[in-house]
Amino acid sequence: MTELHAARRARAQSEIAATGADAALITSLPNVRYLSGLVSSNAAILLPADGPGVLATDSRYFEAAERDCQDIEIVNARQVERELAAIASTRGLGTIAFEAQEMTVERHVELAEMPECPQLVPLGHLVEQLRMVKDQTEIELLARACAITCQAFAALLKLIVPGRTERDLAIRLERSMIDLGADALAFDSIVASGPNGAIPHHSPGDRPFEVGDLITIDCGAQFGGYHADMTRTVCLGEPASWQRDIYDLVAAAQLAGVAAATPDADIADVDATARDMIGAAGHEDHFQHGLGHGVGLEVHEAPMMGPGRTGKLEDRVPVTVEPGIYLPGKGGVRIEDTLVVRAAGPAEILTTTTKELLVL
Amino acid sequence: MTELHAARRARAQSEIAATGADAALITSLPNVRYLSGLVSSNAAILLPADGPGVLATDSRYFEAAERDCQDIEIVNARQVERELAAIASTRGLGTIAFEAQEMTVERHVELAEMPECPQLVPLGHLVEQLRMVKDQTEIELLARACAITCQAFAALLKLIVPGRTERDLAIRLERSMIDLGADALAFDSIVASGPNGAIPHHSPGDRPFEVGDLITIDCGAQFGGYHADMTRTVCLGEPASWQRDIYDLVAAAQLAGVAAATPDADIADVDATARDMIGAAGHEDHFQHGLGHGVGLEVHEAPMMGPGRTGKLEDRVPVTVEPGIYLPGKGGVRIEDTLVVRAAGPAEILTTTTKELLVL
Repeated sequence: MTELHAARRARAQSEIAATGADAALITSLPNVRYLSGLVSSNAAILLPADGPGVLATDSRYFEAAERDCQDIEIVNARQVERELAAIASTRGLGTIAFEAQEMTVERHVELAEMPECPQLVPLGHLVEQLRMVKDQTEIELLARACAITCQAFAALLKLIVPGRTERDLAIRLERSMIDLGADALAFDSIVASGPNGAIPHHSPGDRPFEVGDLITIDCGAQFGGYHADMTRTVCLGEPASWQRDIYDLVAAAQLAGVAAATPDADIADVDATARDMIGAAGHEDHFQHGLGHGVGLEVHEAPMMGPGRTGKLEDRVPVTVEPGIYLPGKGGVRIEDTLVVRAAGPAEILTTTTKELLVL
Repeated sequence: MTELHAARRARAQSEIAATGADAALITSLPNVRYLSGLVSSNAAILLPADGPGVLATDSRYFEAAERDCQDIEIVNARQVERELAAIASTRGLGTIAFEAQEMTVERHVELAEMPECPQLVPLGHLVEQLRMVKDQTEIELLARACAITCQAFAALLKLIVPGRTERDLAIRLERSMIDLGADALAFDSIVASGPNGAIPHHSPGDRPFEVGDLITIDCGAQFGGYHADMTRTVCLGEPASWQRDIYDLVAAAQLAGVAAATPDADIADVDATARDMIGAAGHEDHFQHGLGHGVGLEVHEAPMMGPGRTGKLEDRVPVTVEPGIYLPGKGGVRIEDTLVVRAAGPAEILTTTTKELLVL
């Protein structure tokens, strides 16, 4: 994997050079992982516009860094930013671009007060932008995370019976993903039954399932650092007509959103494609979150897709498409896929679980 | 619980008044939870030096906030800091103290550029300092988290057999804590066997246990938001003399550290009590982390106990005491309790699992 990370650093370096800074100080941990392969809770990279970079991490992770990141200089330090700022100064790098979206005010002041600290300027979301378009290795890891998620989902359908609680189902689903090979969960699972389905981010609780419930399940596995994200809504017993109606509407809006997710599509247009269908049916107020988001080393990353968001999709950008309808006090439906925008042909759906309404 | 949170806010307000600021903008989520009871991934509190506060959170958490936080004004907003800064301005609060240890440079710039934004000054770790001394409700939640941890640990001892992997044991331990009533894990468990025991923060992997291994298990349950933290090292088969020697030394240092954890004790002295015993036996270089840390709504919080740290312990401050010896390539021992410093008598140990060397 080291060649891959060296190539990513080279791409970042040409963009850093274009900003006019002498170097970038990368402190966002997903960005550090992207550029070096290192998984650490305390690490940073000094990446000059030109010449070799330096990776700093502390003694807890130093051994792993030496093993996994052989093509970059590694220093062992507890205060990784201070160490790298001092190295930058020694190497005559006068201006360092830092990640203002990650660095706290306190840490920034500490750095700026170092007598030898280079001038600090904001880098912007340069690495996050690079991360949007995935390489084949990344797409394979994401696809594996999605496959595990779908397998776990299929295995637990038989457990959705009256009397089982949301929390119990969530725990069994999460255990199934781990048993199927996930490194970790991509996020805390949502299981929202009956009226709780009206709360988009409901925490699974002690409510037992009842016949007549719509049950929304939002879950994902993490594999090799990549995050799957899938939602399905099922019905326990035959759906009432209002349940069938909102399900069909969300399913149609979701398909339309997926179809609109093509290279060069404006993000706001993709969102509007699905949102307008829901709004035209009188449910504008019942769908208040964005249509989707990028997924990768973070479960929510660029591009965020919602009203007022700017930018275009591109070939090899994985995103979620997840419209919903939430009726306060009654219940809700959300259907979400993780998919990859493709230059040739339609987007590639990685979460292949059926989107027909499952009546259990 | 609302009275408890109102009382905490009142204590914070008198300290905010003493700083000279007109209000504090609390954005650290554990601090928000401490002062309001709200569990949210997006929330903040505007707490004036005098008069009622305002809690902001978005629509995902608004319903829960209205239910659980009835004695504070609540506003529904996505950009919680901006909303509260605007409210502060409307209410004539000219100077707001913010949490520089939490707020990113990017967010700070966004706030400061609002035309109506009050002057922003750093608050320091005022709320973290208040959180150090726990009330009875907090100690009971922490004790329950520790009891669950000890129960889970006891239940899995019989699973420590040759051939079982670190990762498998970690997963079973974590599931046991959840089954025993934990809300969540306090942190990712560490299971480090044989030579891996030399790595203080080893990630459980595929190494199967072997007869002759020392196995270090560091785990904790979370209950009601409070984090248990316990480490025990066991031996698979009869210990070699070097294993027995370092175990006995760490156990003696741990007991001495616990005994030194009294009200008014200097933090650096507590650390030195245990560290000097290990150093005197020639293992100074084999114990490089701090002796312990506060625990509560975060698994690592004030007071941090290590060489060069300043401050004193107090009645009702929970801390960990966790010396270790790590021998590169050979293995290691760490023994850790969560305990509460008490004014009358010795510290109260909450992790009651035996510290005798368990030979399995």
